[in-house]
Amino acid sequence: MNEKKPCDLLISGDVVLPMTSGLPELADSAVAVVDGAIAEVGTAADLRTRWEPGDEIRGGVVLPGLVNTHGHAGMTLYRGLGDDMPLEKWLHEFVWPAEKLFATEENVAAGTQLAIAEMLASGTTCFADMYFFQQRVGDVASACGIRTLLGQAVIGFPVPGCPTPEHAFEKVRALHERFAGNPLVDTSMALHAVYTLTPELLARGAEVADGLGIPLQIHVSETETEVRNCRDEHGLTPPALLNRTGVLRRGTICAHGVHLTEDDVALVRESGAGVSLNPESNLKLASGIPDIAGLLAAGIPLGLGTDGAASNNDLDMWDSVRLTALLPKGVTRDPEVVPAGAAVRLATAGGAAVLGMADRVGRLAPGMRADLCVIDTDAAHLTPLYHALSHLAYATHGSDVIHTVVDGRVVYRDRVHTTLDLESTKNEVRRIAAKIAVGV
Amino acid sequence: MNEKKPCDLLISGDVVLPMTSGLPELADSAVAVVDGAIAEVGTAADLRTRWEPGDEIRGGVVLPGLVNTHGHAGMTLYRGLGDDMPLEKWLHEFVWPAEKLFATEENVAAGTQLAIAEMLASGTTCFADMYFFQQRVGDVASACGIRTLLGQAVIGFPVPGCPTPEHAFEKVRALHERFAGNPLVDTSMALHAVYTLTPELLARGAEVADGLGIPLQIHVSETETEVRNCRDEHGLTPPALLNRTGVLRRGTICAHGVHLTEDDVALVRESGAGVSLNPESNLKLASGIPDIAGLLAAGIPLGLGTDGAASNNDLDMWDSVRLTALLPKGVTRDPEVVPAGAAVRLATAGGAAVLGMADRVGRLAPGMRADLCVIDTDAAHLTPLYHALSHLAYATHGSDVIHTVVDGRVVYRDRVHTTLDLESTKNEVRRIAAKIAVGV
Repeated sequence: MNEKKPCDLLISGDVVLPMTSGLPELADSAVAVVDGAIAEVGTAADLRTRWEPGDEIRGGVVLPGLVNTHGHAGMTLYRGLGDDMPLEKWLHEFVWPAEKLFATEENVAAGTQLAIAEMLASGTTCFADMYFFQQRVGDVASACGIRTLLGQAVIGFPVPGCPTPEHAFEKVRALHERFAGNPLVDTSMALHAVYTLTPELLARGAEVADGLGIPLQIHVSETETEVRNCRDEHGLTPPALLNRTGVLRRGTICAHGVHLTEDDVALVRESGAGVSLNPESNLKLASGIPDIAGLLAAGIPLGLGTDGAASNNDLDMWDSVRLTALLPKGVTRDPEVVPAGAAVRLATAGGAAVLGMADRVGRLAPGMRADLCVIDTDAAHLTPLYHALSHLAYATHGSDVIHTVVDGRVVYRDRVHTTLDLESTKNEVRRIAAKIAVGV
Repeated sequence: MNEKKPCDLLISGDVVLPMTSGLPELADSAVAVVDGAIAEVGTAADLRTRWEPGDEIRGGVVLPGLVNTHGHAGMTLYRGLGDDMPLEKWLHEFVWPAEKLFATEENVAAGTQLAIAEMLASGTTCFADMYFFQQRVGDVASACGIRTLLGQAVIGFPVPGCPTPEHAFEKVRALHERFAGNPLVDTSMALHAVYTLTPELLARGAEVADGLGIPLQIHVSETETEVRNCRDEHGLTPPALLNRTGVLRRGTICAHGVHLTEDDVALVRESGAGVSLNPESNLKLASGIPDIAGLLAAGIPLGLGTDGAASNNDLDMWDSVRLTALLPKGVTRDPEVVPAGAAVRLATAGGAAVLGMADRVGRLAPGMRADLCVIDTDAAHLTPLYHALSHLAYATHGSDVIHTVVDGRVVYRDRVHTTLDLESTKNEVRRIAAKIAVGV
């Protein structure tokens, strides 16, 4: 007699994409979840003979949850407030002054919660944050049931919540302690950039992070101006300066990497650091187009990100997937470069590896934590369906996500949030935005 | 006493964007429609004192319906069937063989109806088609209540429904006659390209179209290969050859224009022809990146298009809007080039002008036909709302459209089609696709 075992959740789909090396698209398949972890992946018929699910969800395509490797969640407050200007002008004349006035802990928490609502609704199950008030961000993320890599921003001038970089280092230590053992929250240190930190502070940050055994995040070679100024001031490119100061090392998350030289690419590859690609933000801020095909060919760990909503202007990772598949084709004139599957891989398994979570999320395999999303393929724009990966890269938008699961918990079911009140989340941000609109 | 006049429909929004020169965003405003035409645009409070509406719809942002200036509607049948290969290979080894087997009149009608469902649901109110069986396409479009510019494809070899180009010319004459007086259907002649038609056939096509007083559509300088081969064979660039054969003239719609020389740009500008930009298709097929900023600066009439769903892979004009605003910034490194409003203008008023319909659609002004769409701005990813145009260019997707109106008729209301049965439309295409999947 075949006795069925109980499982907490069974997620079935017309197609399951494990994104494990070698495993293809699985038709009419399912994922069984026990205690927040994936217990089995296989055909739905098979799994039903072995598992008795306590709960079930289903849809068209089941795939690992998307991993957003770079962003500033709290910046949803400034979504669309200032567009069509260069990064440096945008930072100095707009973002930093606005944050001085409005980046209070309460406001950052409200903006972060809206970001989380948007991310969960579009299939993102994990995000790296680089911003202020990270203890509060960790609390909000935990409450909303999304996985996060916190990144307390370290900048060489007074920022919200941190009068000095030493205060920021202290905060990082406190974060690391507070969230130790929290299954959803990892801690990193987010050094802002070479143009906002002295080499001494960069080295000091690397040392503190090293002592805690946590990864570093940093903006790297985002604009030509950054690279030119770094060369002028230090005689080195940003990656070379980061290498000299100990910041560029295994586990470090280099955001952007739009203007890397050949030597930079070799240096990053040797270091074991990963790169978070944010092509939409780079276009919008006119920073340029990252050499996605070149970085991929160099074998550098790559993930995708949205950057903050103030420079994107949404947190829809599917746009990042699409641009990652499309831009290299237009630039190189090679239509076979970065095929659909490669772009989806970067958004899932790739991003998990860049955030140091490859052993936990990014693929659907037994033993992994159950972070996944389910796509409703019934829409006109996804009809007919020949190849799931093609639709994911070239026709899917965030609104096609129907369910999202993080750590085995259904946090978004039938397009409704189960862990947050969407209306009050939006209204709180609208209330703050009304003040910002007058104040900036 | 103020006596109210009856109007058929009142469309109100938190913001109305007339897209007329000089008129800014109008807050809390509305559009009154009488007999399919716009009777008045103004504040909602004002309009309510003057009009007694028979029907009402409302939403966040009201703007002119999007005009899709280039596509092959019937090709939704092949959506995602063949990706990640160059245009020439894709045409010769895939599209044309597949069409030989499956582009029957019935199948093209089914694929077209699915395309129309997708377009109406994402705010597109008018599309230029370039494909086969255009009489049937005109009938389907009329029945579904979408505006269209038919374009019977003329190619120098036997194609579905047309054994010779002369047959195609005959079909164009018949189309012109059949749809004369149809308020939703205009007719054009769609010469395929310089690489599929001899100079004699190009000239003959121009002559026939001239006799009928209808515009020409043609693919122009889409790939480097097309330009190189044209130079090798004729000693001229495609625009120069089209100029010599009489095809390049006022009203001609040049699709793509990715590889135009400086002389080409001058030639197109002098001719009065318009260009349909299809940046997403150009990226996907690795054709390149059109010089959108340059063409805009040259003062050439520009519209946006999606191209067919086999090379995009959806018909969401908002992706075209976004890429039109983003790509030139990344390429030129100038964040102020093609601002949000300019991209939205190309998708509406710009496209209407390119299709020769500027006197009827593309702007919200008294006397214009009532073609418009309404955006639901309540979603997390559109919160907060500071500037409507910013959201339209950088954060809106097709799924944010809540109502679509064509010629005064609400064809999509509260996200439901009123003129077609979506389920049977999708199922019919799935039935055909099941055969294609086996047959190709």
